Amino acid sequence: MIRLFFLFFFLIFSCEASVQDFCVADFTAPEGPAGYSCKNPANVTVDDFVFSGLGKAGNTTNLIKAAVTPAFAAQFPGLNGLGISIARLDLAPGGVVPMHTHPGATELLVVVQGSIATAFISSANTVYLKTLKKGDIMVYPQGLLHFQINAGGIPAIAFVSFSSPNPGLQITDFAFFANNLPSILVEKTTFLDAAQVKKLKAVLGGTG
Amino acid sequence: MIRLFFLFFFLIFSCEASVQDFCVADFTAPEGPAGYSCKNPANVTVDDFVFSGLGKAGNTTNLIKAAVTPAFAAQFPGLNGLGISIARLDLAPGGVVPMHTHPGATELLVVVQGSIATAFISSANTVYLKTLKKGDIMVYPQGLLHFQINAGGIPAIAFVSFSSPNPGLQITDFAFFANNLPSILVEKTTFLDAAQVKKLKAVLGGTG
Amino acid sequence: MIRLFFLFFFLIFSCEASVQDFCVADFTAPEGPAGYSCKNPANVTVDDFVFSGLGKAGNTTNLIKAAVTPAFAAQFPGLNGLGISIARLDLAPGGVVPMHTHPGATELLVVVQGSIATAFISSANTVYLKTLKKGDIMVYPQGLLHFQINAGGIPAIAFVSFSSPNPGLQITDFAFFANNLPSILVEKTTFLDAAQVKKLKAVLGGTG
Amino acid sequence: MIRLFFLFFFLIFSCEASVQDFCVADFTAPEGPAGYSCKNPANVTVDDFVFSGLGKAGNTTNLIKAAVTPAFAAQFPGLNGLGISIARLDLAPGGVVPMHTHPGATELLVVVQGSIATAFISSANTVYLKTLKKGDIMVYPQGLLHFQINAGGIPAIAFVSFSSPNPGLQITDFAFFANNLPSILVEKTTFLDAAQVKKLKAVLGGTG
Amino acid sequence: MIRLFFLFFFLIFSCEASVQDFCVADFTAPEGPAGYSCKNPANVTVDDFVFSGLGKAGNTTNLIKAAVTPAFAAQFPGLNGLGISIARLDLAPGGVVPMHTHPGATELLVVVQGSIATAFISSANTVYLKTLKKGDIMVYPQGLLHFQINAGGIPAIAFVSFSSPNPGLQITDFAFFANNLPSILVEKTTFLDAAQVKKLKAVLGGTG
Amino acid sequence: MIRLFFLFFFLIFSCEASVQDFCVADFTAPEGPAGYSCKNPANVTVDDFVFSGLGKAGNTTNLIKAAVTPAFAAQFPGLNGLGISIARLDLAPGGVVPMHTHPGATELLVVVQGSIATAFISSANTVYLKTLKKGDIMVYPQGLLHFQINAGGIPAIAFVSFSSPNPGLQITDFAFFANNLPSILVEKTTFLDAAQVKKLKAVLGGTG
Repeated sequence: MIRLFFLFFFLIFSCEASVQDFCVADFTAPEGPAGYSCKNPANVTVDDFVFSGLGKAGNTTNLIKAAVTPAFAAQFPGLNGLGISIARLDLAPGGVVPMHTHPGATELLVVVQGSIATAFISSANTVYLKTLKKGDIMVYPQGLLHFQINAGGIPAIAFVSFSSPNPGLQITDFAFFANNLPSILVEKTTFLDAAQVKKLKAVLGGTG
Repeated sequence: MIRLFFLFFFLIFSCEASVQDFCVADFTAPEGPAGYSCKNPANVTVDDFVFSGLGKAGNTTNLIKAAVTPAFAAQFPGLNGLGISIARLDLAPGGVVPMHTHPGATELLVVVQGSIATAFISSANTVYLKTLKKGDIMVYPQGLLHFQINAGGIPAIAFVSFSSPNPGLQITDFAFFANNLPSILVEKTTFLDAAQVKKLKAVLGGTG
Repeated sequence: MIRLFFLFFFLIFSCEASVQDFCVADFTAPEGPAGYSCKNPANVTVDDFVFSGLGKAGNTTNLIKAAVTPAFAAQFPGLNGLGISIARLDLAPGGVVPMHTHPGATELLVVVQGSIATAFISSANTVYLKTLKKGDIMVYPQGLLHFQINAGGIPAIAFVSFSSPNPGLQITDFAFFANNLPSILVEKTTFLDAAQVKKLKAVLGGTG
Repeated sequence: MIRLFFLFFFLIFSCEASVQDFCVADFTAPEGPAGYSCKNPANVTVDDFVFSGLGKAGNTTNLIKAAVTPAFAAQFPGLNGLGISIARLDLAPGGVVPMHTHPGATELLVVVQGSIATAFISSANTVYLKTLKKGDIMVYPQGLLHFQINAGGIPAIAFVSFSSPNPGLQITDFAFFANNLPSILVEKTTFLDAAQVKKLKAVLGGTG
Repeated sequence: MIRLFFLFFFLIFSCEASVQDFCVADFTAPEGPAGYSCKNPANVTVDDFVFSGLGKAGNTTNLIKAAVTPAFAAQFPGLNGLGISIARLDLAPGGVVPMHTHPGATELLVVVQGSIATAFISSANTVYLKTLKKGDIMVYPQGLLHFQINAGGIPAIAFVSFSSPNPGLQITDFAFFANNLPSILVEKTTFLDAAQVKKLKAVLGGTG
Repeated sequence: MIRLFFLFFFLIFSCEASVQDFCVADFTAPEGPAGYSCKNPANVTVDDFVFSGLGKAGNTTNLIKAAVTPAFAAQFPGLNGLGISIARLDLAPGGVVPMHTHPGATELLVVVQGSIATAFISSANTVYLKTLKKGDIMVYPQGLLHFQINAGGIPAIAFVSFSSPNPGLQITDFAFFANNLPSILVEKTTFLDAAQVKKLKAVLGGTG
């Protein structure tokens, strides 16, 4: 009896409540400037809010000896609309995450194993460079160029959080050399020598 | 003649104008992180912007002697995307709106009849407690615990506005006791005695 | 003893907690685009979050037979930074709130006494007109022209909430006629006759 | 070989990257409070980001001797979700853009030919009036009334940028006189004489 | 010579560039709704963007066998204005972070050692409960009640990121029992028995 | 008499109105994450909202044959807090604005003289390349690499608007070569040859 009266009160609110708590991505419906459409809350389960892909090391047997495993909204639909995302960074000894930006987010890195040398460069061209050890964190303000390098003899691991569910990633070398942007335009807009452009275009699969 | 020339000027703009003025909710189309899809402006009428459900008292013949009647975007589609909503609060003598939060909005209460004792508690655990009379207003910052109690001998009425069309509502007792969260977890995470948890689970219909 | 251990845990957090809960306006410190500077939380009391100025009727013994009593951040410092504000509207029989806009907020009106005829006009020049009775609410999307008129034989009262602590108010007649904007410019940009402009400038105290 | 290793690294990221870079409007899918749905990135070309409609003068052979050619999201889908838009303003000698507001954006005007007299009026009814020459810029804060008048003997041209892809436009005369808002309501809410209202309703095609 | 010409180009921009890149907190200047005032960029060094406090375990020799070490803007000034923060969570065997909310942010947890049982509860009172192992991540939408419990026999460690530099923290037990909120009001608004309230007030140091 | 009554109504509102209309930058007071502190509205004049610095060509007698003249909040205080800014771009024949990003804004370019070849590159490394003629506009989504080159035989002029009063500017070459970032780190994170790095460091004044 007492329960029924409470439920009466409760039901008044429950109809719309799920609307604003979260918006798990439904990849089959249209996407808008604020993110993906929402999955029907009735079909949402805890597994929409949990992601297990960061538990094992990325494959670093590549030339840069590095791997980045993202858990952005496209991989982890529970993040949609919630203003945050994360990725795992593995750096084998000698590993490098080359110069890059995240056009849509600030990054916050925490070292959980090993040591990492890292810097970001401001619009005023000032270099903010530091070698981080386990437990250290560093923040990279939105949109600025930065890099990470393994600074120890053992594999380094870090988790990097972002202030957006879709931070984006633009690796400068790929933007310059891994597409069909004509070499002459690359040269004119970067001041790099033609031979250098040609060499990196070949390495990175660019044409033109 | 003069009219035609004006209309020519006018038509240049009119095509897109309705786009940004408002976005009345279309509950049949996908919803996204920023709210519901928009109804076709051609089908929008003034009745989309008017809501009459707050004109009569909610039913307070329940144990808490209180009723909250919401006009959020789910009930009042004209609010969609506009950053505001409202609800009517009826408190019979002895009535209580129990401890709760609105995860997505600041609340602003205005007393229109009777007297209400109310408080919110900050992250620093400070209590901001006051008894309000007719015409008084109080603001409850986003996400903080608060409650309202009838502080007079007559029915109290208030209107509560929110800084979001979907403020959400989480009543602490319902969150703790009106679902299937195992009692042992409730006890461990709230420090409440097992008997207390069992009693309130029974009252509020919880299981586990 | 048990208390001490808890307090240890508690103190870790308490130092910064008040920072983000609220930002009560300190009118003596600089103001920025996001609002006023914050009062020291240690000096904040519940009275910063309560405002009593809306409890009595505004003075409607003026030509428009209307009064608007605002509780914006400038009057009610607890609202600063919280995305909401409110005002009381009194309309004596025959009273009118003339055509106006709020450049910075959506408005949500609830009638608490009497009857009000009201409309807003969209960018597409569509008129959304309705007569509201006690308990009815209406939303006016941000920045659009609207007005309110007493539609009954008794004083009407409404509370109007806004989606900003500083919604602004631009009454069209005051903008056109109550300042030093040269009459010739008013005529050219409003298509009003010179005699009409002269007449209203005189009424409203404009020069030029 | 080296290329393959790089591509491995590259592909990890590329799947979701386009999600957040841009959201070109798809006018055939639902629209929400944050803008139009996004076109599939695979179908996006450079032409979605380029608009050529502002290259020629608008037709100013009308009574106000003015033309405004917008490139808002509705005309230029590449702007959707990106927080900016633009329009071209042509003012023949004697031309006038009448009093108006943009409910959803701040405007920034740059004169590229001729001379323009212009003002905006604040909520405090202060007039900010200036005659601009070629190369001058002026900013009009969001939602405030403003106008532009050709101040020279030759055609004037300006580009006006907005802080939103859908700034909206409300021309006061059209809002008052070019619709079915009853004349008696116009008179009561603007203090204009009945004859003046009747005259402008006739000119602008209003009824009622 | 070539350098001088470049520098000419460069200097045009450099004056304002640092303005928008970051805003390191200056705790001695006024604070506003958007955060702390900015330290003069000329005095900013890389150490403003690096924080080393999360490198060692928090002290879990307390009754809840848990410690949370925050790196919010108040501890780590480089985060000010950047939309992100982080904390380290240590849970000894049997450790518990009690029911709490973050009024101002979504939380994203990554387990770096051990196992953690955790849940959040939605506005619809649905429980989203999961036991996480090393490398798993879970997201807790803004403002909703949640908890963490060590679910293994060894110490568990997690890093929790937040979508705000000042997420806030409201532990329900502290809000209810660790202040001067009168017991009778606690009882009325939580439905807890008087004895239960008295007991927890004693444990947590509450009065009234 | 009639005027006095109106003024009574008017004064109620006027006190706070200027608060939210604008926030002209006061460079002598503290700056926060949302922008500069506001100048006292009583001291604001129309000249705070007008800027004349874009009326004449920038000096393009440098090696890149280009000049960018900004009107950001730091140069044009009236823009503070208003979400928009602008710059003038002069490109002599052969002139180039090298690869760069704006970390904090979307850019919208309109060609007012000559012809400009331009491209931006997405996170997916797709090149969006176009040659624009007079009157054409192009949008560059926030944070992405882009460049402009004079594509005709005559000087080209463009106005570029930004979706922020402080868009920032990071020219890739300056970030890589015009500071003290050690050459070995540049090489490792850009894959450029040591000789190339050394050459450009020399040209651009870098050390290390």
